Amino acid sequence: MRNIKIILEYDGTNYSGWQIQKNTPHTIQQKLQDVLTEINKSPVKVIAAGRTDAGVHARGQVANFFLDVPIPLNKIPASINRLLPGDIICKEACEVSVDFHARYDARGKEYRYRILNQTLRDVFRRNYVYHYRLPLDLKVIKEAVFYLTGTHDFSSFQASGSSIDDTVRTIRKLEVLDQGCEIWIEIEGDGFLYNMVRIIVGTLIEVGTKKISIEDVKEILNAKDRTRAGFTAPACGLILLKVSY
Amino acid sequence: MRNIKIILEYDGTNYSGWQIQKNTPHTIQQKLQDVLTEINKSPVKVIAAGRTDAGVHARGQVANFFLDVPIPLNKIPASINRLLPGDIICKEACEVSVDFHARYDARGKEYRYRILNQTLRDVFRRNYVYHYRLPLDLKVIKEAVFYLTGTHDFSSFQASGSSIDDTVRTIRKLEVLDQGCEIWIEIEGDGFLYNMVRIIVGTLIEVGTKKISIEDVKEILNAKDRTRAGFTAPACGLILLKVSY
Repeated sequence: MRNIKIILEYDGTNYSGWQIQKNTPHTIQQKLQDVLTEINKSPVKVIAAGRTDAGVHARGQVANFFLDVPIPLNKIPASINRLLPGDIICKEACEVSVDFHARYDARGKEYRYRILNQTLRDVFRRNYVYHYRLPLDLKVIKEAVFYLTGTHDFSSFQASGSSIDDTVRTIRKLEVLDQGCEIWIEIEGDGFLYNMVRIIVGTLIEVGTKKISIEDVKEILNAKDRTRAGFTAPACGLILLKVSY
Repeated sequence: MRNIKIILEYDGTNYSGWQIQKNTPHTIQQKLQDVLTEINKSPVKVIAAGRTDAGVHARGQVANFFLDVPIPLNKIPASINRLLPGDIICKEACEVSVDFHARYDARGKEYRYRILNQTLRDVFRRNYVYHYRLPLDLKVIKEAVFYLTGTHDFSSFQASGSSIDDTVRTIRKLEVLDQGCEIWIEIEGDGFLYNMVRIIVGTLIEVGTKKISIEDVKEILNAKDRTRAGFTAPACGLILLKVSY
């Protein structure tokens, strides 16, 4: 039994997210397990670094699974890709030690959130950006980012109803990039609470429209109360860029 | 009755092309006519500069229609866009003389064809490029382009079964652009025969793989025989960039 680590890219538009769910065959985990089970001729379970939500994309999702069949390592990506639909692709495969676990061993994750900040929507980018019509003040957003970077209790930036004990996380990088008509918010950290990136983005957007002041951001962190932070930005703008180990 | 000229952008992926057809509600013309009929409160017929095929995209399609209701010109794009699906958008509207006809008055069209020339397919670009795995010799493609530019009888580059008398067309510009992992073929002319752009691209790809020589290209033109030219490149790589009047 070999433990195989793969790098996956997917367009999350047509899926109910990574994780297998009852009542829908449209999850990325399901598609991948179906393909691997066919290749392996016996059931395969796939573990991903992060269980991306419905509509969230990935360029560098990492997953691992155990394989019985003696298929050469360099043939694995092509074998998988031949059976996967066009919106999922395996970019790399390598063999790792049997105790490697894609989720538990992840040391960091990097996400990008794309905001299309113009009046007109864009037909070609509609599934990959959040179209936000109102003007955003990039200068104040860039200032607000300072208060969120570093190690904090991010309870206020966690979807309500979450039941995680340790809500302290470290954001190593939080950058706001001016890309013409798009604004990219890039965030890197040791781990993220449920919906944390999207709530941070929603809060930064409200900072950009002056609904929330820069000073408020510090108070929101201290409040440890989800209702104080901004809205949850839509899934389609989010992409998991990289997982580090 | 005002004659309104609009500029349209659309993602053709989910449509059976521009033109209304029996047995499918999924045409761009149908969507637009439904929306305009709702706004106008009486049936509206929309004429486009070019009837793009299923899967072909547009950034600058031009269309015109007659409107009875006294809706201000500057309100027309937003009124239409509110009712259109996310993959079609009206970017501009202006009033033109009653005898303007989007198709008959068009003096030129510009298309771009995108080839993704790398081993791996790309999940995000899958609907907007033609993924061609084999290496292509750009140098010979650029030389072959010389023979196609200008005024020629393009019978060999017309879908078989077409019944058009005048098959002489002028290609004013035919450029091959190296865009890293993508190759763009940009073509501008006074008009194009059915499938002409896609057959030119297919032929240039076969030049790039040395299946067709540069000298053959001249002979293919002279032969006036569809079977001599290359394959018809897939629709998804094609986008109508601009129509000139």
